[in-house]
Amino acid sequence: MLGNFFNALSIAIIGVSRDPNKVGHVILRNFVDGGYKGKIFVVNPNAESILNYQSYPSVTMIEEPVELAIVAVPAEIVPKVLEECGRKKIKNIIIVSAGFKEVGNHKLESQLENVIKKHKLRVIGPNALGVFDAYSKIDSLFLPRYRMSRPKEGVISFVCQSGAVGSSIVDLATSEGYGFAKFISYGNAVDIDESDLIEYLGNDEKTKVICLYVEAVRNGKRFLEVCRKVSRKKPIIAIKGGVTEAGSKATLSHTGSLAGSAEIYFGVFRQAGIIRAESLEDMFNYAKILEKSIKPSGEKLQIITNGGGYGILSVDSAVKYGVKLAEFDKNTSKELRKNLPQIINIANPLDLVGDATSGRYKLCIDASLRDKNIDVLLVIVLVQTPLIANDIIDVLIEAENRKKKPIIVVSAGGEYTERMRKKLEENGIPTYTYPENAVKSIKQLVEYHNHKF
Amino acid sequence: MLGNFFNALSIAIIGVSRDPNKVGHVILRNFVDGGYKGKIFVVNPNAESILNYQSYPSVTMIEEPVELAIVAVPAEIVPKVLEECGRKKIKNIIIVSAGFKEVGNHKLESQLENVIKKHKLRVIGPNALGVFDAYSKIDSLFLPRYRMSRPKEGVISFVCQSGAVGSSIVDLATSEGYGFAKFISYGNAVDIDESDLIEYLGNDEKTKVICLYVEAVRNGKRFLEVCRKVSRKKPIIAIKGGVTEAGSKATLSHTGSLAGSAEIYFGVFRQAGIIRAESLEDMFNYAKILEKSIKPSGEKLQIITNGGGYGILSVDSAVKYGVKLAEFDKNTSKELRKNLPQIINIANPLDLVGDATSGRYKLCIDASLRDKNIDVLLVIVLVQTPLIANDIIDVLIEAENRKKKPIIVVSAGGEYTERMRKKLEENGIPTYTYPENAVKSIKQLVEYHNHKF
Repeated sequence: MLGNFFNALSIAIIGVSRDPNKVGHVILRNFVDGGYKGKIFVVNPNAESILNYQSYPSVTMIEEPVELAIVAVPAEIVPKVLEECGRKKIKNIIIVSAGFKEVGNHKLESQLENVIKKHKLRVIGPNALGVFDAYSKIDSLFLPRYRMSRPKEGVISFVCQSGAVGSSIVDLATSEGYGFAKFISYGNAVDIDESDLIEYLGNDEKTKVICLYVEAVRNGKRFLEVCRKVSRKKPIIAIKGGVTEAGSKATLSHTGSLAGSAEIYFGVFRQAGIIRAESLEDMFNYAKILEKSIKPSGEKLQIITNGGGYGILSVDSAVKYGVKLAEFDKNTSKELRKNLPQIINIANPLDLVGDATSGRYKLCIDASLRDKNIDVLLVIVLVQTPLIANDIIDVLIEAENRKKKPIIVVSAGGEYTERMRKKLEENGIPTYTYPENAVKSIKQLVEYHNHKF
Repeated sequence: MLGNFFNALSIAIIGVSRDPNKVGHVILRNFVDGGYKGKIFVVNPNAESILNYQSYPSVTMIEEPVELAIVAVPAEIVPKVLEECGRKKIKNIIIVSAGFKEVGNHKLESQLENVIKKHKLRVIGPNALGVFDAYSKIDSLFLPRYRMSRPKEGVISFVCQSGAVGSSIVDLATSEGYGFAKFISYGNAVDIDESDLIEYLGNDEKTKVICLYVEAVRNGKRFLEVCRKVSRKKPIIAIKGGVTEAGSKATLSHTGSLAGSAEIYFGVFRQAGIIRAESLEDMFNYAKILEKSIKPSGEKLQIITNGGGYGILSVDSAVKYGVKLAEFDKNTSKELRKNLPQIINIANPLDLVGDATSGRYKLCIDASLRDKNIDVLLVIVLVQTPLIANDIIDVLIEAENRKKKPIIVVSAGGEYTERMRKKLEENGIPTYTYPENAVKSIKQLVEYHNHKF
């Protein structure tokens, strides 16, 4: 039943103003510019046509079937519009309109509930941005594309109670080159809530990792059940808004929900196998590593670097976050000792020192990939020194393609570094600017796969 | 005596190869391309001229005075070259050559010490990148500019035991638009150490904030004395490499120093008034806020946002990091209640909701600047919604120009957001992508100024 929110072949946008700055108009424009391939119907009783689309006075006047309605009319009219959708047999509805429970208008929200029950509708919203699907181009986000760029097709799906958190993070991630499968801002959750969406995404082939921003879970028991099941199939990364008393108080006026005790939430997260992010940045960093199809077979990390300080900070982080440090097998040690300059200490971190070449990296990466004592590789490549040639990228991609073990790259710097990082990311290698973030994310990767199997 | 490292009007580069990829040649090239205004002398006994500079067989053959020598010859020859510098009365010397204590060559390093004592030289290095001064363009960093971009003139100075950490972070910060005063990578510290440099920077008018990456302090007592004095004048942000046993072991082969117990270090940091960063990213985030000339008169933070979720996450972070939350004065509350839409809850965070305009922001920022219960303002501006016009930038800059209270901005997003952030930064407003990082940095700002006065 939720499929139509993402795959509908025909949609009606109800409440399309002629004013290009108004919500309904922005949504229509985004469908047109985004390249949605299905049929679009426009509803506005006061217009004949908008952007060359015939305008219907009501959905009931549309003769063809409609699989999904997007409602952008003033709050008071929403129940009436829903009633019409019910009569037209449109079962899937996104309500972007605000002015319900979140502003204390509980009566209007319960009117919605009644219509929903009566017609057995499935509703996302109200007070929501709704849905963006990178594949079908269904896009109810009433944010113009010059303000919020849309992500390319990818494997991250993001379920977000806060529209602003969702849209800004998707915008940011897009500019960093990440792809998404689906983004859903579900607002007041009058009908469909986080559990319904996570359950759906659990079965969605396009989605490989689920991110969640939640202030208050509607049904704790069901949430636990659903997440426990889904987290066995794919990682769920969650951030909880309102983990302190002051923060929790603020959620009340935001989504009209009581955030509840943080400790209870964290307990549920643990039981459900949910990876908890302590900040938006962490969520983003974890998604970057978990979206890649890389599974470590164990938890032992080897660090290879051409900057001693970075190696030391990485080891410090590994100890801090509880990532096990690998020790080279005797044969690997022997091989490396024979082939590396004497000044290099065969250890963890393996510091290839400032004059490291791509060839020296290749030697050590290959040896580490063969070493059964090593499960994950953190390769730090600082390209400020000209001795590292561009072919370091090929060395890393070639090693990654053999896909035996996860390889994570840290590289900090300016333009030259960014170009390299983009290339690595495009080839499925997660990259980080700061060693501490890389190690913290590796911890999640290792933990998720160790938990799971 | 240290001034010549940064202001020398004449320099000699000793060991300039004709090969453009060799260290000495890269240094010469960087002086020429960087726009250094002083006199440059090139020393290479096997060349007549390099890049149109006459080549001298030895510094002793230069007839004019030389204020600073940069030594890039093989390690074994360094003592001999230093001897010649001594005879030529060059007192300030940067040794970029490696191959001393850090590779176990203690004998060679003590030979250095003897020459230094004999001629009363002041030496930075060996095994160091040396000095970059954004004002004088003195630049011994043997990293070509296409690999590591040089920062513009600014007020951050960075003292870094690790060349790789330093150069990559400066490169990164440069690409983000930050300016620097001085960068010093001091390597093995055969003579000048972190304490000498911090003492010098404490008196340097160009430097407003000092960053430090250190693995091992050479003289703990002196370090404590110097930092205690300097931290009263300007903030010192330090990150310690090797805080764990495994990390500490790794420092031995990096800079040949024993890192020592982390707890002792942290104790010294506290006593010395040093702000401890737990990661490179933190150091960078703290520097961004502390480099601005903004002093809060107290510690009470008011949060203003157009994204509810961001407000909640900021409040959560404030509680987590111990930043006090402000409460509006009664008169402010009344004024805001009168002028803001009813759905807006006059609270902290002050959520101006999704349809907030620049005018609504201006009203609330102005009221907060007047409110004696508020010391610091965190303004979250998400520009994915088109209702925020470009003039929000003017509103913020105008408020900042009155300089009564620190204003910090959080804005997450893609290109549109980045353009806004750059403009704000150029106008002295610190900006952050993630609310958690902003609040953590505000904590440092507040704490530094409360400690100090």
